[in-house]
Amino acid sequence: MKKILLFLLLLNCSSNSIGQNELMKQYNLMPWPKEISEKPAKFFINSDVTISINAQDDKHRVRNAAVMFLRRLSNRTGVFLNEGFPVNNSKGNIQITFSKVTSLNIETDESYTLDISDNSIQINSNTDVGAIRGLATLLQLTQNNTTDNFFPGIHIEDSPRFVWRGLMIDVARHFQPVEVLKRNLEGMASVKMNVFHWHLTDDQGFRVESKTYPKLQEFASDGQYYTHEQIKEVVAYANKLGIRVIPEIDVPGHASAILSAYPELGSKKGFTYAIERYAGVFDPTLDPTNEKTYEFLENLFKEITPLFPDEYFHIGGDENEGKHWNENQNIQAFKKEHGLETNHDLQTYFNIKLEKILAPLNKKLMGWDEILTPSIPTTAVIHSWRGEHEGLEQSTLIEASQKGYQAVLSAGYYIDRMLPVEHHYSVDPIGGAALTKEERKRILGAEATMWSELVTPLTIDSRIWPRTAAIAERFWSTKEVNDIPLMKKRLKPVSFNLEELGITHISSRDVILRGMTNNQDISSLITLSKICEPLKVYERNKGGIEYKSFSPFTLFADACVVDAEDAEMFNELVSNFNNQPENSAKTLSYLNQWANNHALFSRLEKNQKMIPLEELSVNLSNVAKILSTSIESKSINESDLDTLKTSLSTLEKPHVDVEVVITKSLRLLTDYCETNFL
Amino acid sequence: MKKILLFLLLLNCSSNSIGQNELMKQYNLMPWPKEISEKPAKFFINSDVTISINAQDDKHRVRNAAVMFLRRLSNRTGVFLNEGFPVNNSKGNIQITFSKVTSLNIETDESYTLDISDNSIQINSNTDVGAIRGLATLLQLTQNNTTDNFFPGIHIEDSPRFVWRGLMIDVARHFQPVEVLKRNLEGMASVKMNVFHWHLTDDQGFRVESKTYPKLQEFASDGQYYTHEQIKEVVAYANKLGIRVIPEIDVPGHASAILSAYPELGSKKGFTYAIERYAGVFDPTLDPTNEKTYEFLENLFKEITPLFPDEYFHIGGDENEGKHWNENQNIQAFKKEHGLETNHDLQTYFNIKLEKILAPLNKKLMGWDEILTPSIPTTAVIHSWRGEHEGLEQSTLIEASQKGYQAVLSAGYYIDRMLPVEHHYSVDPIGGAALTKEERKRILGAEATMWSELVTPLTIDSRIWPRTAAIAERFWSTKEVNDIPLMKKRLKPVSFNLEELGITHISSRDVILRGMTNNQDISSLITLSKICEPLKVYERNKGGIEYKSFSPFTLFADACVVDAEDAEMFNELVSNFNNQPENSAKTLSYLNQWANNHALFSRLEKNQKMIPLEELSVNLSNVAKILSTSIESKSINESDLDTLKTSLSTLEKPHVDVEVVITKSLRLLTDYCETNFL
Repeated sequence: MKKILLFLLLLNCSSNSIGQNELMKQYNLMPWPKEISEKPAKFFINSDVTISINAQDDKHRVRNAAVMFLRRLSNRTGVFLNEGFPVNNSKGNIQITFSKVTSLNIETDESYTLDISDNSIQINSNTDVGAIRGLATLLQLTQNNTTDNFFPGIHIEDSPRFVWRGLMIDVARHFQPVEVLKRNLEGMASVKMNVFHWHLTDDQGFRVESKTYPKLQEFASDGQYYTHEQIKEVVAYANKLGIRVIPEIDVPGHASAILSAYPELGSKKGFTYAIERYAGVFDPTLDPTNEKTYEFLENLFKEITPLFPDEYFHIGGDENEGKHWNENQNIQAFKKEHGLETNHDLQTYFNIKLEKILAPLNKKLMGWDEILTPSIPTTAVIHSWRGEHEGLEQSTLIEASQKGYQAVLSAGYYIDRMLPVEHHYSVDPIGGAALTKEERKRILGAEATMWSELVTPLTIDSRIWPRTAAIAERFWSTKEVNDIPLMKKRLKPVSFNLEELGITHISSRDVILRGMTNNQDISSLITLSKICEPLKVYERNKGGIEYKSFSPFTLFADACVVDAEDAEMFNELVSNFNNQPENSAKTLSYLNQWANNHALFSRLEKNQKMIPLEELSVNLSNVAKILSTSIESKSINESDLDTLKTSLSTLEKPHVDVEVVITKSLRLLTDYCETNFL
Repeated sequence: MKKILLFLLLLNCSSNSIGQNELMKQYNLMPWPKEISEKPAKFFINSDVTISINAQDDKHRVRNAAVMFLRRLSNRTGVFLNEGFPVNNSKGNIQITFSKVTSLNIETDESYTLDISDNSIQINSNTDVGAIRGLATLLQLTQNNTTDNFFPGIHIEDSPRFVWRGLMIDVARHFQPVEVLKRNLEGMASVKMNVFHWHLTDDQGFRVESKTYPKLQEFASDGQYYTHEQIKEVVAYANKLGIRVIPEIDVPGHASAILSAYPELGSKKGFTYAIERYAGVFDPTLDPTNEKTYEFLENLFKEITPLFPDEYFHIGGDENEGKHWNENQNIQAFKKEHGLETNHDLQTYFNIKLEKILAPLNKKLMGWDEILTPSIPTTAVIHSWRGEHEGLEQSTLIEASQKGYQAVLSAGYYIDRMLPVEHHYSVDPIGGAALTKEERKRILGAEATMWSELVTPLTIDSRIWPRTAAIAERFWSTKEVNDIPLMKKRLKPVSFNLEELGITHISSRDVILRGMTNNQDISSLITLSKICEPLKVYERNKGGIEYKSFSPFTLFADACVVDAEDAEMFNELVSNFNNQPENSAKTLSYLNQWANNHALFSRLEKNQKMIPLEELSVNLSNVAKILSTSIESKSINESDLDTLKTSLSTLEKPHVDVEVVITKSLRLLTDYCETNFL
């Protein structure tokens, strides 16, 4: 008994922490699988690679994934394959076997096993979706050296922690064409996400064609909307990748666009409704006391729900401050008449009516967490988005599950806030909460949210990726997979491989910088972009008044990304400099690069887009030059120290909508020079 | 009388050659307009820019173009506009006025005038299409300096030389998704092209959904085809840009895909038809003696012609060598029976039957020039593609027009042959031919052809652009606009601005090189790519047997483009070195860069995609090092000269599917060193 216990302890210890960390250094899997062990084997990738699918695959998910797998494998390795498609016999050296084709819902079994031997690879699963998850894992295992491309011998048993692993894309603030969605769906599938939440309407636009209410696309979309056929196309594309699509029609607030087309449904008579061009929270709200409102929504939902086969249907319900309700005497009278004390009560009245419209359409009503009021029935699904920034001590997720609601978390996963990857990666949906089995089951999972006030098709990928890959791991892998350096190490290759899918998160930077410079040498701007990040937590847009939806998003800030790569390296070097920066050739090399950078920048012919960068460029060079000279000479004089401090202070302030994210390290070096070299 | 003549001569001379060349140095317009004159004025681009459209615009072409114009202007300049959409009053400082909304056909009036003054811009035209051509011109006139963004004072009167200015994209050899087509349509519109010829079918795939013959998409497309809705979407998108769409269903040859779905229509009984994976000319051919063939085509054409509103319908008709016809005794008997002496006669029989199917569908039959036989009626439209490489002394264009056929030229504009831009730019469709007015009128214009054996969505843009912009000028501008250096000077900014449209011709290089190196530092590979070009005139694919449709197209050759930029600069430097290379700091700077490049390359961790590049890299560095040392020291010894010559000889051979396009210059420098410094 003791021996067995010891053995189990060792096994547990080795496979789950020490051993696992060692494996994480070797294999760039993300999300990290549930169980993984090595085998003394190697499967060589050469022109003889073939795939057999041993099952009926009538939704073609596996065939589609296998073809994509072969293309990506060939393009990645340069190997010319003899067979570009799955072979029709069962003799493939990659064997995919599954028991059934599944429909997509929260019960879908996504588990699989993957086994790589010298001459064969086996992927086994209960469902076709499990099989495609296994293929995604296999592709991440591609390795190469000077002589070979190969898959390492490995055995994996894998299944997800949460059944709902989503990405929300807001296509209302800035419209995102079908191809943007498709490439991001591919990205999602590559890291095993399974829910695309499509935020289709907001104050800034209504993006769904309606044949019943054609004014919606005519007057509320600026011509930028999805036809029914395009919606079907996206849903089918997602389905092939094992991704469910949840549409969101945001009501009763966020309704400027709807009301610009159908003002008669608004809460404030005589108000001039128009598509909103700014970002923020606005007053236009559907009138919940008007039966026509429900007639409109019922007809609209009847028309569009068939496009979205998923059981869940998101009605938004957030950020209605009720201003126009307060200003409308009839609405106030209605509240009294129906015993509705607050606007929240009135909104709950509205939500319950919507639920009754949706139920016969076989849809479960889902809404942002403002819908969580005492009288909303537990059939509603709570999407928790508010956290401490919105005045809550913690998200409503746990509370909702304890009260009997299914719930999904987005608080902590707002990728538009431009926070570092470790911030999101460190948010565990459940944390330390003690939950009953039923409560735990009601916590479906979580979603990263890409709000689009400040992104266009050119920049959206660089705001979604690569951070969303790490978030995907948080949603799939066990809670114990949480080592940040090992996550970052794996994220690099995973990020880079996303380019294979047409995702532009890496390439868009240079496109923007070429545009900024009229196609001059962009190397000095690249150097700057690698230590600058867009302003965080909505600071860039100063409460929504700086950028309109049609403002330029081809500025320096748009070329910069979160987790700026040189900043990360430099900050780490400085934090480890042990009071001897002069010993760090790398630190000095960065400083010298920045010291010389302004000379490069100066050579460029300037235009109005570049000129605002000049101050940043000069100050960076000043600071870097004095620091590097001082460190190398082990001396600094008062005058240089003054200049250094003045330039550094300027550098610490936001410039051109970015922050220079090495200033703390520069301050540390400045203090060090002052203390030791003055 | 004499005075007037002199005046006219002067006017002609100044505006058409000397003056025009001066203007070409200042303005990056492409295609160059018919008449252009400067005005002492400047229109400043600031937040007050507004556009009024003074006309009914019920096809929304002008509104669409105006919105795109405002977005591009704002993104390009960084100016935050107050009004992101055309203003509803007529007070815009940019005024667009046109007389009528037109349908698209060969009579469409695309002329416009553009007038830029200090405070207002006028675009006037007869049609909405003319107006959008004017907006495209205006956008190309955007200029900036350190203080301002502005449009220069200018007056333009413009109209095209040819009514048919096309780009053909082959979506059969490699499928190109809708977004690839859309971005290329935008590119076409930006240089005023007006015909998208959609090569939809070939041996390698049938890319149109058929509800009548669903096996076509099921068995002949690998799942890669356009639905009817997608076709409508593309056609509508093109129409908004003033671009006609001509579909091509290539028959009776190039029919492997069709016959893989409907083998009963084939000319060789018992033959196993399958989608072709290689490139080349293949035998599968529809049986022209089988009434079922015509029934099939009639039903198919009836189904799909409504998707394509244009009057012209392309039936291919090329490269049928009749091998399977010769091998079929029934077909031979049929020929005798019908007095058809040759296979050409039989194909004409087939074409005439097709014309009779198409006529009641209101379609004009168009075909590649093999259809030009004595008995084909003059209602057919001849698409001339063959030239001296295909055994003709000259294209069939002039002959066809003289015989009474409408005709379109593609010989000389095969951009997949990877020839330099000046090659295509120098081909004049009419040349010195003396034509009657009627004959001239029947020459509709020309098309660049992008065959897709060796391109994927990742690389196709870099094969189409920027060369097609120069070809577009050849089709739009007068014959006299033919100065190659001035074309190249204007092509650079025009090319770079294509990035604004999402065209990836610049950005795809780095995507490929990152993929080749597993995301290491790609600078040494960039240096190599700037002096290497993909093998020309189909050499890369060695007769079609090296690359299958599913082979990797992420290799070094795919990162390289025609008109390699450093090569062009270096070759010019060397050609002007006047036997004093030592005086050219720039020449030496290139040589030193290449001399040092292999050291950079050597630092990279190698994989199977990079290793084949090693030889090229070493030899280039060897040659450059010896040349630069020799030139700087004015001496060379026998041993170095030997090494130099050996390395250079290797460099002169094709490597990894590219040719090093500076070897002639290197040879010149080698000879110079040998002669002067040994």
